[in-house]
This record gives sequence, structure tokens and C-alpha cells, in this order.
Amino acid sequence: MTKVAIIGAGPCGLSALRSFEQAEKNGEKIPEIVCFDKQEDWGGLWNYSWRTGSDQYGDPVPNSMYRYLWSNGPKECLEFADYSFDEHFGKPIPSFPPREVLYNYILGRVKKGNLKSKIKFNTTVTNVSYDNENFEVTYRDKKNDKISKDIFDYVIVSTGHFSVPFIPEYPGMKAFPGRIMHSHDFRDAEEFRGKNVVVLGSSYSAEDVALQCHKYGAKSVTIGYRHNPMGFKWPEGMKEVFHLDRLEGNKAIFKDGHVQETDAVILCTGYLHHFPFMSEDLKLKTGNRLYPPMLYKGVVWQNNHKLMYLGMQDQFHTFNMFDCQAWFARDVIMGKIKTPNDSEIEKDINKWVSMEEKLENADQMIDFQTEYTKELHELSDYPKIDFELIRKTFKEWEHHKVENIMTYRNKSFASPVTGSVGPIHHTPWEEAMDDSLKTFLNK
Amino acid sequence: MTKVAIIGAGPCGLSALRSFEQAEKNGEKIPEIVCFDKQEDWGGLWNYSWRTGSDQYGDPVPNSMYRYLWSNGPKECLEFADYSFDEHFGKPIPSFPPREVLYNYILGRVKKGNLKSKIKFNTTVTNVSYDNENFEVTYRDKKNDKISKDIFDYVIVSTGHFSVPFIPEYPGMKAFPGRIMHSHDFRDAEEFRGKNVVVLGSSYSAEDVALQCHKYGAKSVTIGYRHNPMGFKWPEGMKEVFHLDRLEGNKAIFKDGHVQETDAVILCTGYLHHFPFMSEDLKLKTGNRLYPPMLYKGVVWQNNHKLMYLGMQDQFHTFNMFDCQAWFARDVIMGKIKTPNDSEIEKDINKWVSMEEKLENADQMIDFQTEYTKELHELSDYPKIDFELIRKTFKEWEHHKVENIMTYRNKSFASPVTGSVGPIHHTPWEEAMDDSLKTFLNK
Ligand SMILES: Cc1cc2nc3c(=O)[nH]c(=O)nc-3n(C[C@H](O)[C@H](O)[C@H](O)COP(=O)(O)OP(=O)(O)OC[C@H]3O[C@@H](n4cnc5c(N)ncnc54)[C@H](O)[C@@H]3O)c2cc1C
Ligand SMILES: Cc1cc2nc3c(=O)[nH]c(=O)nc-3n(C[C@H](O)[C@H](O)[C@H](O)COP(=O)(O)OP(=O)(O)OC[C@H]3O[C@@H](n4cnc5c(N)ncnc54)[C@H](O)[C@@H]3O)c2cc1C
Repeated sequence: MTKVAIIGAGPCGLSALRSFEQAEKNGEKIPEIVCFDKQEDWGGLWNYSWRTGSDQYGDPVPNSMYRYLWSNGPKECLEFADYSFDEHFGKPIPSFPPREVLYNYILGRVKKGNLKSKIKFNTTVTNVSYDNENFEVTYRDKKNDKISKDIFDYVIVSTGHFSVPFIPEYPGMKAFPGRIMHSHDFRDAEEFRGKNVVVLGSSYSAEDVALQCHKYGAKSVTIGYRHNPMGFKWPEGMKEVFHLDRLEGNKAIFKDGHVQETDAVILCTGYLHHFPFMSEDLKLKTGNRLYPPMLYKGVVWQNNHKLMYLGMQDQFHTFNMFDCQAWFARDVIMGKIKTPNDSEIEKDINKWVSMEEKLENADQMIDFQTEYTKELHELSDYPKIDFELIRKTFKEWEHHKVENIMTYRNKSFASPVTGSVGPIHHTPWEEAMDDSLKTFLNK
Repeated sequence: MTKVAIIGAGPCGLSALRSFEQAEKNGEKIPEIVCFDKQEDWGGLWNYSWRTGSDQYGDPVPNSMYRYLWSNGPKECLEFADYSFDEHFGKPIPSFPPREVLYNYILGRVKKGNLKSKIKFNTTVTNVSYDNENFEVTYRDKKNDKISKDIFDYVIVSTGHFSVPFIPEYPGMKAFPGRIMHSHDFRDAEEFRGKNVVVLGSSYSAEDVALQCHKYGAKSVTIGYRHNPMGFKWPEGMKEVFHLDRLEGNKAIFKDGHVQETDAVILCTGYLHHFPFMSEDLKLKTGNRLYPPMLYKGVVWQNNHKLMYLGMQDQFHTFNMFDCQAWFARDVIMGKIKTPNDSEIEKDINKWVSMEEKLENADQMIDFQTEYTKELHELSDYPKIDFELIRKTFKEWEHHKVENIMTYRNKSFASPVTGSVGPIHHTPWEEAMDDSLKTFLNK
């Protein structure tokens, strides 16, 4: 019997499990599936952990989410086509839920079936190699500190790429009398109440970590950008300055001459696509971009079509794009989709990569990823969903952020699945200090 | 030609390199040696890094030392027999130097030769397996993210066991509004100035981290022990209470009813002997103890005499014990020492293990490890050193600590190598805020 290994039970791995479950429901005979996850439960990054560094078994902690994290994009843009928010919560809910609510939603879909039994938890894949016909997958049972090997016909890598931080060094770090940390280890903004905080970066993490610190009472938040500022209209107590030059004692000195006393430096300097467990010939090497190379349709490994990567793109689209990828991967594995010859694959990848390289602004990037997702969607029987509405919603959201970074999360949008419009939340984000599901849904 | 892999270039790995260098100086033909270290420089834990979590290549940071760390035992007890402190510094120095001074000393010995050329830095060993005759060692060049394999006749594991933290969970951690960390990630006590700090543990780390926080101005330091308190006479602002029960909001609630508001919880809960890179049949599995099982003379792997582990013991004795182990391992590899038959090995290991299990107090443990080190010392030509003086010094030191935990580092002892007595340091430890080599040696 064909055997498929899925590495990771985050949103992408769960999309993969769900895709096979659906085929089985449709009466098809599906392969044997083993899913591995190094965490003790499913949900990937959405499964909050207070832990940082390494866990009780000495294994690096993948979790990067923090308390009080609220969705930074409209939930409508990530809705599952086969499982709407309305269906899960029994009523329309606001467009920007906190983490716990989205976590609940993700799990709602997979809890219905018997998928959990296919997952080996607390199990880290440490090596994947390919030999003639098969993959050999080596994995460590963390609880029993035991290493085993198994043979598979197909491997789906869905280990995420926001778990292994990239941490650069600046002069003076060695002698800085305070905390230096990466956003990967950020857990609780309250820790920075009354403090002067320096945040380095200019991407989603920098934006949100800086806002969190401000919201929970930091004395000052100074964001250092390297290339272009985010340029939002920051509230009082926050500012954006140009590029950290060095630390001197407890002072952060920026290249524009700005000097800021600081208690903590939070590096929001991004993550690595890190697959230390993949052998050289199978390893995706890429920065964080909208179309990583070597992946046919963003999924199938160019040099070995029995290997798939899910969710390796930089992300506007998330859960429903992961689904489209998973349904596509499933159909390749089950022989319902035939991959074309090498030169056609090469041409297809090059087409996308060269389009991607020309993108200049957020609107164009949204268009690019929407087109990619739509094309993928056409290739399988993943249910209907209104990608044109999603495209429009993403663009409005971007414009809301530019208008006012403090209030964009108070807006509401329509579902691309059911059409229902999310109600306005009872409390504006800036005043909503409690991020529990209970408060969000019931107050 | 015989090939030896040394994994780790900390004090133990450097002892191994040094032992072969000495044999070569004596005119013997030594094997080909490749040493691997995942750090970018040598010295192991003594090579301070501001980094925590993972490094710029996504690899876990092994470093556990912090700013303002001073030797917690008399330097005389760890002196190299073949390279005295007097020789290195050109004069006697006080008995409790800060980290930078000991780091300088460790490197002084190995910098003289050409040993650095044998070390592959930024290289993590990811797999070691044994097949018939040889070891296959897989390693990752971190800078180039490249995996390679080589064949070796012997492997020496010297990767330390104070790098991978053990982090237990207590109720309430998930919602604690402050910082939870392991001492492995402790870098700078100044961060805790003015704060209420809870320290959990009752071993060296708990003792020293608690004292550091106090010394650098923490508002209060509350130490929670699990079995026995350390029981020192803590200065005002520090106390020891019984076992953390749970966190409730920002309150730490102990099993003796004690309640403490806290800003940070520092888990000094020890480290794992963690060898995820060793295949099952070669992997040492042990807690932190004075005589880990399966190691003949504390060094040679019982089931495969071509595999050695250095420094895997819980440690009173350090650098000169590592040397004795390294000289012994070298002589086994070079055929100068023959290992006895299986039943004699079994008997020898059991003898030590059962003695160890009967130890009741610090003095007995010091005696035990001194006896072990002396026996090992007899087996090679490692130079003469006065272990009886070391034994006596350790015991005095233990008693000084009980007398006054704040002043034991102001004492001085005689060298077991040169006999010279360390001068009293110019500044009592409690007032010495600057831990630089320059200030220590020159003021
Ligand atoms: C701080 C932060 C905020 C975010 N906010 C949003 C948001 O608001 N909306 C949104 O849509 N997206 C958000 N994202 C993006 C997020 O990446 C996706 O939502 C989603 O989690 C990606 O799913 P994944 O399955 O690819 O990866 P992950 O969620 O990272 O899951 C990967 C899984 O693989 C496991 N794994 C990794 N290595 C191994 C191994 N060697 N062996 C076994 N298992 C392994 C991990 O344990 C994990 O469970 C955010 C990301 C971050 C970091
Ligand atoms: C906080 C703290 C304070 C201490 N204070 C003292 C003291 O005052 N006096 C004293 O004598 N001892 C002290 N020690 C004990 C310390 O363990 C020893 O001094 C010494 O560092 C042990 O040397 P080692 O070579 O065994 O291990 P380490 O110093 O840990 O060196 C191991 C080396 O192996 C490398 N490595 C690990 N895994 C791999 C891999 N897979 N591939 C390649 N390389 C790898 C690491 O990068 C590291 O360089 C202290 C320890 C700690 C944690």
C-alpha cells in the first residue's frame, strides 16, 4: 500500500490530512498516512506555548505566537471553503478574532473525523533521505528519547517557516545591560510595561510586537527600520527611526543620529526556511518570498515529484491557500493529476518567479498571490470560494492600515463562503485587553 | 591512517586535542584528528554569547554562562597539571576569577600549538552511527547549510551537559504576565534590578543566579526548593521557601503557603544529558550524577570501546579531571592501554556506581570524585598534581560557603601545581561589579 508521511500538524499539515479525509468520504481508496509533529498537540503556531528556547525534551520550541495576539488580517480572507466561520460558531463573528478563536476554528474542522489518530505527537523528524524508490524518514520519539526509521512513498513537508528565528548581531550587544530577544521568544507584552523598548524590523512582526508593547503600557517604543519605514501614523509614544548602528551601554544609537535609552531590544528580524532534517538533494533553500523556486505550482519539488512542500510562500493568503495546495498535492499523489515533463515544469516555475520579481507594492502582491491561488484552485475539486471578494478585502484592509494602524482591526468584511457580514466587535481593539475566546464571543 | 573525531571544542574537547599534541611532542605518531564544534570559536560554555534560543543559522545556542559570572569553586581545584595559572598570568592571581579570566587561561594552553587548525567551527554533528568497523559521522556546515559525512575509527563525545535545559511546567504558567525563563537563557542580572524574582531550584545555578539578581539590585529574590533547601544564610532581600505550587496571575504560591508577587520566574531546574545525534546503540542515557553508567573508567562506552565520552560526570573536579580522562582516552585509542574483558569492565563500573549510590553529603562526594580522578591519573602519564591538596581545598570551600555564602569567594588557596598561594582579591566579590579581566588583574 502507498505510504505518505506528512511532517507537521499545523494548518498546512491539517489541510493535507483533511484533503485525504475528503477523498475517502467521496469513496476513494486513500493511501496509508502517518503525520509527525514535534509538539504534543496539533494546530502548529496557533497552539500557544509559554515555552521559549527548548522544551522539556531538549527540542527547540517552534511556537512564535504570544498572548494577546489578534489576527492581523481579516478572518474572511483565510476562511475554509468547506467549513465556514458561521458553521463553526453558529453565528457571524467579527472580522479580527484573537488567536484562541482562530485556533478553535482550525481545530473544529479536523476534530469531526478521526484524523488525530493518524498523528504521532511529540515526535520530531530528524532525517529524510531518498534512495532509488523510497524515502527513509528518521524520527525521534521525544518522550522516550528513541530514534526510529520508516519507509514512505511520498513525503509532504508542512513544517512552517516562522519557527526558526534569524538573529543578526549589532555592535554592543555583548555588553548591553538588559534583554535582547527575537520576536520568536516574545510571549507577553505586559513584561514591558513602563519600559523603553527598541523594536528592530519593518515587517508584520515588528508592526505587531511594537503595537502590543505600546498597548500594554511600554513607556516608549522605538522601531528601527533598515530599508523602508512601515510609515504608519504611530500613536504618541511610538516612533520609527532609521537603522540601528550600535548599542552603547543601555543606549541604542541609530544611523540617523537618534539616541534612545532602552531596557529591551526586540529583534523582529524574520525567520529562516530551515529544514535541517532534509538531505541536500531534497532541501528547499529560499528566503521568505511569494514564489520560492524549485516548487512546481508552489508545491511539488522540481527534482522529485514524490516530495511536496506546503505553505512555503510568504503569506497574504493562508488557510484556504494551504487547502488548495493540499488538495493539489493529494491529487498528484493519488495519480489524478499528472505532472508535466521537466521543461514544462521549468517554464511554469520561471513564469511565476519572474512575475514575482517585478512586484512593486502590496496591491500587486495581493493580486499575484490571488492569481496563484485561483490557478491552483482550478486544478482540484476544492469547493467553491469567492477569491475575487478575498482579493478586494485584502486591498481594503491594506488601505485601512495606512489610514489608521490603531483602528483597522475594528472594521468588518463579508464572508467569501457564506456571504454573511461580520458584526463590529463589542470592544475596539485598542481597548480590548482580554483576548479570550469567551470574552470575544459572549460579552 | 587511524581517524579520530572529537565532537565539541569546550574544555573537554580541548583536553582531548591537547593530549594528542603532547603525545606527538613526545615523538609518538598520532592519529588523524578532526574536531567539530557548532560554535564559531572554541572554549565551550566559557565562550560567552549574548545569544539565547537559536543562533543566526537556526541552531540551538549551547551557551549557558552569563555576564558577571565568577568561578564558583577555587581555581586551584581545576588547574591544569601541565600549565599552571602562574605560568599563564606570570604571577599568582586570586582564587575566584571571573569567567573572562578562566576563559583566557583555558585558551592560553591550546593557543601555543597548532590545534585550532584541527577544528571545524560552525559545524554541528547531526548523526553518529556505527557499522561493522567504523563510525559514520554526519555534520552540518552551518554557514553554507551543507550536510556531509565522514568515516572515523574512533569517536570522542565532548559536547558537555549543561547546554540543553530541562524546563518543567507549573500550573498558571500559561497566563503568567511576566517572564518565565530557564537559567540557560540568563544573561544579565541588571535586567532584574528593582524586580521581584522567583528562582526555582536548589543546585549551583539556583544559588548563583539568585545571588546575582540580589547583587545587581533585584527588589526581592525568593528561591523555591523541591526537596532540600540549600540552607545558606541568605542576606536580607533573599529567602528560601518550599516548592512552587502554582502561579496565579503575577503571584507565585508555594506549597508552604508562602505567596510572592513576582515579575520573573527563573527556572534553575537543571540540564539534560542530550545526544540527539547519537544512534540508539551509542547513546549515553543518564541524569546528572557522579558516575553515569555504561562508561568504563567514566570514559569508554561499555558496548563499543572505540567510543569515548568525556566530562559526563556531575562536577566538583573539572579541567584537570577532564585532562585525566582525555589522556586515558588517548592511550586507549593509541593502544597503550588495553581495556579488560567484558566481565571485568562490568565489575569495575558496578563498583563505582554502587559506591556512588551510597554517598550522603558533599564531603563524601568530594572524596568519591577525588578517588576516581586519582585512579584515572595513575593510568596515564598526565603530569603530577597534588590531588590531596585539591580534596582538602574543596572541603574547605564547602565549609566557607556554609559559613557565609556572600564571602566565600574572598578566600584564597594554594596551587596543587606550583604551591603558590593566591593573593586576596582587591575587591570583595559582593562589591565587585565589573567582571572584566582587565579590572581583575590590574587594578
Ligand atoms: C507571530 C505570528 C502571527 C501570525 N498571525 C497570523 C494571522 O493573524 N493570520 C494568518 O493567517 N497567519 C498568521 N501567521 C502565519 C502562520 O504562519 C500561518 O497561519 C500558519 O500557522 C502556517 O501553518 P504551517 O502549517 O505552515 O506552519 P506552522 O503553524 O508553523 O506548523 C508547523 C508544524 O510543524 C511542526 N514541525 C516543525 N518541524 C518539525 C519536525 N522536524 N518534525 C515534526 N514536526 C515538525 C511544528 O511543531 C508545527 O506544529 C502568523 C505567524 C506568526 C509567526
Ligand atoms: C552557568 C555555569 C557555570 C559554571 N561555572 C563553572 C565554574 O565556575 N568552574 C568550573 O570548573 N565549571 C563550571 N561550570 C561547568 C562547565 O560545565 C565546565 O567548566 C566545562 O565547560 C565543561 O566542559 P565540556 O567541554 O564538557 O562542555 P562545554 O563547555 O559545554 O563544551 C561543549 C562544546 O561542544 C559543542 N557541541 C555541543 N553539541 C555539539 C554538536 N552536536 N556538534 C558539534 N559541537 C557540539 C558546544 O558548542 C561546546 O563548545 C559551569 C557550568 C555552567 C552551566
